[in-house]
Amino acid sequence: MQLDTIAAISTPMGEGAIAIVRLSGEEAINIAGKLFQGVGEKRLTDVASHTIHYGHLIDPKTNEVIEEVMVSVMKAPKTFTKENVVEINCHGGLVSVNRVLQLVLNAGARLAEPGEFTKRAFLNGRIDLSQAEAVMDLIRAKTDRAMNVALGQMEGRLSKLIQRLRQEILETLAHVEVNIDYPEYDDVEEMTHKLLIEKASYVKKEIEKLLQTSQQGKILREGLSTVIVGRPNVGKSSLLNSLVQENKAIVTDIPGTTRDVIEEYVNVRGVPLRLLDTAGIRETEDIVERIGVERSRQVLKEADLILLVLNYADELTLEDENIFAAVEGMDVIVIVNKTDLPQKINLERVEELAKHHKLVTTSLLEDVGVDELEEAIASLFFAGSIDSGDITYVSNSRHIALLNQALQSIEEALEGVQAGVPIDIVQIDYIKTWELLGEIIGESVHDSLINQLFSQFCLGK
Amino acid sequence: MQLDTIAAISTPMGEGAIAIVRLSGEEAINIAGKLFQGVGEKRLTDVASHTIHYGHLIDPKTNEVIEEVMVSVMKAPKTFTKENVVEINCHGGLVSVNRVLQLVLNAGARLAEPGEFTKRAFLNGRIDLSQAEAVMDLIRAKTDRAMNVALGQMEGRLSKLIQRLRQEILETLAHVEVNIDYPEYDDVEEMTHKLLIEKASYVKKEIEKLLQTSQQGKILREGLSTVIVGRPNVGKSSLLNSLVQENKAIVTDIPGTTRDVIEEYVNVRGVPLRLLDTAGIRETEDIVERIGVERSRQVLKEADLILLVLNYADELTLEDENIFAAVEGMDVIVIVNKTDLPQKINLERVEELAKHHKLVTTSLLEDVGVDELEEAIASLFFAGSIDSGDITYVSNSRHIALLNQALQSIEEALEGVQAGVPIDIVQIDYIKTWELLGEIIGESVHDSLINQLFSQFCLGK
Repeated sequence: MQLDTIAAISTPMGEGAIAIVRLSGEEAINIAGKLFQGVGEKRLTDVASHTIHYGHLIDPKTNEVIEEVMVSVMKAPKTFTKENVVEINCHGGLVSVNRVLQLVLNAGARLAEPGEFTKRAFLNGRIDLSQAEAVMDLIRAKTDRAMNVALGQMEGRLSKLIQRLRQEILETLAHVEVNIDYPEYDDVEEMTHKLLIEKASYVKKEIEKLLQTSQQGKILREGLSTVIVGRPNVGKSSLLNSLVQENKAIVTDIPGTTRDVIEEYVNVRGVPLRLLDTAGIRETEDIVERIGVERSRQVLKEADLILLVLNYADELTLEDENIFAAVEGMDVIVIVNKTDLPQKINLERVEELAKHHKLVTTSLLEDVGVDELEEAIASLFFAGSIDSGDITYVSNSRHIALLNQALQSIEEALEGVQAGVPIDIVQIDYIKTWELLGEIIGESVHDSLINQLFSQFCLGK
Repeated sequence: MQLDTIAAISTPMGEGAIAIVRLSGEEAINIAGKLFQGVGEKRLTDVASHTIHYGHLIDPKTNEVIEEVMVSVMKAPKTFTKENVVEINCHGGLVSVNRVLQLVLNAGARLAEPGEFTKRAFLNGRIDLSQAEAVMDLIRAKTDRAMNVALGQMEGRLSKLIQRLRQEILETLAHVEVNIDYPEYDDVEEMTHKLLIEKASYVKKEIEKLLQTSQQGKILREGLSTVIVGRPNVGKSSLLNSLVQENKAIVTDIPGTTRDVIEEYVNVRGVPLRLLDTAGIRETEDIVERIGVERSRQVLKEADLILLVLNYADELTLEDENIFAAVEGMDVIVIVNKTDLPQKINLERVEELAKHHKLVTTSLLEDVGVDELEEAIASLFFAGSIDSGDITYVSNSRHIALLNQALQSIEEALEGVQAGVPIDIVQIDYIKTWELLGEIIGESVHDSLINQLFSQFCLGK
């Protein structure tokens, strides 16, 4: 496939020691070569692949030195995009890297769209769609476990599983065709029937297994939306600080924007907690006062996890009871804080209110009970041990939706066979399952979907 | 010089396509080699210098795949630090790059201090101190011009000038020694006297020329602290927005911190304006109300430039007059805004108050007068044209302080000669000048100064 030559800044924006402007395409080496002045008579167009060259970028219009650079030349096809790739390492800093990018664009490259390098890796057949999606997950990973899941997917673990299932379906259909073509055997109908049931059951079971990982996969990938709720002065800010201090806070920008949206994550035993509207919690102690207000309820409803804080040294109030009512039916951990002070709370009543929810007592002031709380958070979502090394987690919403559809269609196939529906009708459901699974790895998908997927990537990837 | 092997993340923190972990030192290649698993049997320790290798980093303890990487191997001495250098390009993202760094540290590298890579380039004699300082200026450059100044300094432009002056002084002193050693010539004393005056005058003139560039140099390097001041509702926010929108805003983090301090720069015709306390201006329209308060006056006093905004469609008030009084003696541009509305302001009185200050009338609403304002800003500090290509700007406070001291000591030498002070006494001032100039390029400087200088660098450089 012949595509034009693209360029973009591939390192995060900000001050750093090194920034990279990356080019990909047929003309990548020629374009960089027009600008590069190395030591002696060295020309980039003559150098070997996968080599690094020190020199300066010169503006051909003014002969002005633009930057001191190290240029990496990687020739097709053994590159990220399977095209010629040049990486220009320049001094970090906004002006420097922007100047280099401008120079490269003036020399004939086109500014890459977000995700366009990875898209080319996909279009040129180096990786499939689920692997491409994993590249972005990898960059956005908030914890080691999330990173391992993404890495596994990028290495093709999910792809292989999906391919195996598709292969099973194809082989089954081929087998059925053969059986139909040779109806002289006696037991053809019975055998075909048996085979179809067996294979559909197998595929169904495998899809179900994958879907079972999806809740945990999504949590690993996207983090657990967490709201801390409680009356004023029960220790909500202390809890927040305690979680942030004990666990390294991860602060990220949403790519492509400049600090418009800031989210804070804390990594609790490998579970990334996304503290929703943290600023709001910090600034306003009055979420409880507004608990009756619809908007506050909405914030709670969007949360995956509620940390409900009570005051051990105070009696339960109507407010406390209202909070319990507001979080009815959600995943809640009840924290009775300030055990360093004399007890006034009625713990029996708390247990009544908490029902089946996990209850933890803490003295955040004296750092008591925090371990237990973290254990509670981790075990609530990862009951039993989780070992990201062994399991293929499905974490991507698109994949989950497709797997659900595939599950439905294979179930319909199975019901059809069992109900004695003619084989050529049942086949349609098998083929549909095969197609839906194909969409996960990017076979038989529309261009518009591909464009939309890659547009969510960050620039330069 | 034999130093241990250091490692750091050399790209800005944040989500990006690529991040780099850099190693430098004798063991850099061995350490990376222990972790790297390439295609086939390839070993990093065997590869040629300045080559790039695709593979995976494996944790030797668990045999777990940590990341997919491209590893650049550059062998001493043709590297940034003159030591063995390895750059590990991994997927951007906080978890990914931190994992790679941890792995490298576990394998025997030490976490680099801020600026330690550049410090090694200095200690190993690849660059002098003023060049090393220019590396940081280059990263922090806010405009093209600032970048050109830094680039020139990094290429050794200032160093060469300083070296030439030092050479002149040394040769003069040598000449004087020779004259003293051969007192049999008749006119020795007269000749020596003449030579000393001539050379001291020359060195003095050159240092003065350099110092003349320092105001502009500092502005290019550090930006112009700018405060927008005026009564409520005169258009301060519009002015801010207009400056930010017309000129690309540059938002930077102070390196090493996470968004604790945010400064905003706008690039006005090559002059970087640092909008002081912009958030404050945005949020509080009441800087005028607090004009009597000492703290507000302090903010004004720290500014390099005051943009004083008046309302064309309103009469002058006592508040306006108070503002004029508060900015007495500072660099002020007076902006009479809202010329789209009927005039109520007494322009003659404004001109009286403005005195010698530049006066600009604008309608920010209709985008009238903004060009004129920008021209006024640029010409206030760069009267006549500025061409960063030709001039060696001194921009660094340390350099400026040393040049001032050197100027003083060469002036003392000159006065001494002219007053007939004995030559061996006058020599002391010449030598002192020579030493002070040496400190600029890092000859005869203390370790403590060097440590302090490099500690201001960003991590990974």
